[in-house]
Amino acid sequence: MAKYSFGVDVGGTTIKMGLFDLEGNVLDKWEIITRTENGGVNVLPDIAEAVKGKMSEKSISKEDVVGVGIGVPGPVDAKGVVHKCVNLGWGVLNINEELGKLLDLPVKGGNDANVAALGEMWKGGGQGFESIVVVTLGTGVGGGIIIDGKILTGAKGAAGEIGHIHLDDQETETCGCGNRGCLEQYASATGVVRLANRALEKTTKTTCLKAGEISAKDVWDAVKAGDEVAIEIAEQFGEYLGKGLASIACVVNPEAFVIGGGVSKAGEVLLEYIRKNYIPYVFHASRDVQFTLATLGNDAGIYGAAKLILDETSA
Amino acid sequence: MAKYSFGVDVGGTTIKMGLFDLEGNVLDKWEIITRTENGGVNVLPDIAEAVKGKMSEKSISKEDVVGVGIGVPGPVDAKGVVHKCVNLGWGVLNINEELGKLLDLPVKGGNDANVAALGEMWKGGGQGFESIVVVTLGTGVGGGIIIDGKILTGAKGAAGEIGHIHLDDQETETCGCGNRGCLEQYASATGVVRLANRALEKTTKTTCLKAGEISAKDVWDAVKAGDEVAIEIAEQFGEYLGKGLASIACVVNPEAFVIGGGVSKAGEVLLEYIRKNYIPYVFHASRDVQFTLATLGNDAGIYGAAKLILDETSA
Repeated sequence: MAKYSFGVDVGGTTIKMGLFDLEGNVLDKWEIITRTENGGVNVLPDIAEAVKGKMSEKSISKEDVVGVGIGVPGPVDAKGVVHKCVNLGWGVLNINEELGKLLDLPVKGGNDANVAALGEMWKGGGQGFESIVVVTLGTGVGGGIIIDGKILTGAKGAAGEIGHIHLDDQETETCGCGNRGCLEQYASATGVVRLANRALEKTTKTTCLKAGEISAKDVWDAVKAGDEVAIEIAEQFGEYLGKGLASIACVVNPEAFVIGGGVSKAGEVLLEYIRKNYIPYVFHASRDVQFTLATLGNDAGIYGAAKLILDETSA
Repeated sequence: MAKYSFGVDVGGTTIKMGLFDLEGNVLDKWEIITRTENGGVNVLPDIAEAVKGKMSEKSISKEDVVGVGIGVPGPVDAKGVVHKCVNLGWGVLNINEELGKLLDLPVKGGNDANVAALGEMWKGGGQGFESIVVVTLGTGVGGGIIIDGKILTGAKGAAGEIGHIHLDDQETETCGCGNRGCLEQYASATGVVRLANRALEKTTKTTCLKAGEISAKDVWDAVKAGDEVAIEIAEQFGEYLGKGLASIACVVNPEAFVIGGGVSKAGEVLLEYIRKNYIPYVFHASRDVQFTLATLGNDAGIYGAAKLILDETSA
């Protein structure tokens, strides 16, 4: 009987890999370089090589392995078809089939944010829940939605693109997606800095923050130190994000929101600002949704990928 | 082998019932009164009586019946537990079990809006799609979300409560839910009338619409007749609804939005105003989502209920 699964998380510069037992304990974890040249033609062969190498190193036979789960930075449909992965140079390909052929093992692929959300549900901040929305506050704002333990993929693999929920008609700057007033423009790390610089331009209050020289971390550190201007910025951040999450709750009515990404390192204080600004905007049936912090950090992807193939092969 | 299923749609005043073959043809359809007195204690026995009566009338044996699907006006969880149905006087009960006992047949219950959405996917405006959001523009704004052919229920049975997505910080009037600025305040039949009365108070242009005496239908009739003020109202309606649907698309990335309810009787012109106001706000991956009109009207509920039990028993 099979005893192991592999979880692979493909990023634009490195590929994270993990060897797991069936209970979700990580037995080994390592990284390889992402070779994106020539349309990313080496990426899947490099992964296959790394999996085979690990199996040989640990004397693991093919019969011992359930399969390989893999998260990639682009939309992936339910059949494993990647429609475009700009960061890897990929066009359209079926990762389930391509990597499956190279390894002669079952392979199941998904979008990296969705796969990471599955990881957080399995072994991270979403443990104990079956329906969660994982909100990743990093350079941008990403999302992954898990319903009854399964990833919500969407028709084109674009479910959970919550960073582009429209929130502000008055916004004059353009979001990376080309629209204006997206959640990402306020709740990402760069969004927090934008809010901060705007507040600092206008304020006449004393503050430890200096326009043009601050990070999202500086803002949250100042909030914790009681800085009045930083607290106003946190309120604005909370109002945008609370409003956005309230809309999401009207649509999918999750048990919990799990907040991750670099900005979430601010910790519990962040959840306070989100929760209190969420309540006034949400439909009553979703008022008691839980808010938790993601706990797996950069490992969420390999955990989720390992879970993805376990679910697939046990289904 | 079973040849029939029953679809039941429970409303606050009447209960609609349908007898279906397995291909989804309705063979008979009738209504009974909803007796809501005494905490609605008669509702399920009345339904059981009506089903048994029809079986006896048509000489249908229990072995010929797959089961009974039922939609009720309240949140229903995945196990068939109704948490509260204000319109029926119900507290907490498990309809699958209670009605199942009365009939000695498989029963599967769901929220009426969700069940109607399933009906539209099966035999109505959502045919050919597997992932749709049905938007019902009636007295309020309701929604039903179908993902990969299955109802998205939500943790508390409150998924698809899209009428309460927050859209306008400037709103001064309160929505039925207690919040302010909900989609329902602009896109329901009463919402359209509110937008119209507000526009008529301010305008100096000539129009056939008279403040205080108009219905949503009057507004759309005037739009079709080229009335300039009515067209401005339609634009406002479209902007609110387009913005709301764009947010929903960021979350679930459906193949299509199916627009139903009384307001949708305006027809294709409605879709034009929604679509053109949706595009500027939506994330590019959801830009080519289809917009269609619901076609089953008040029968969507019985169709969806019949499909619900068919899916349950064939799963």
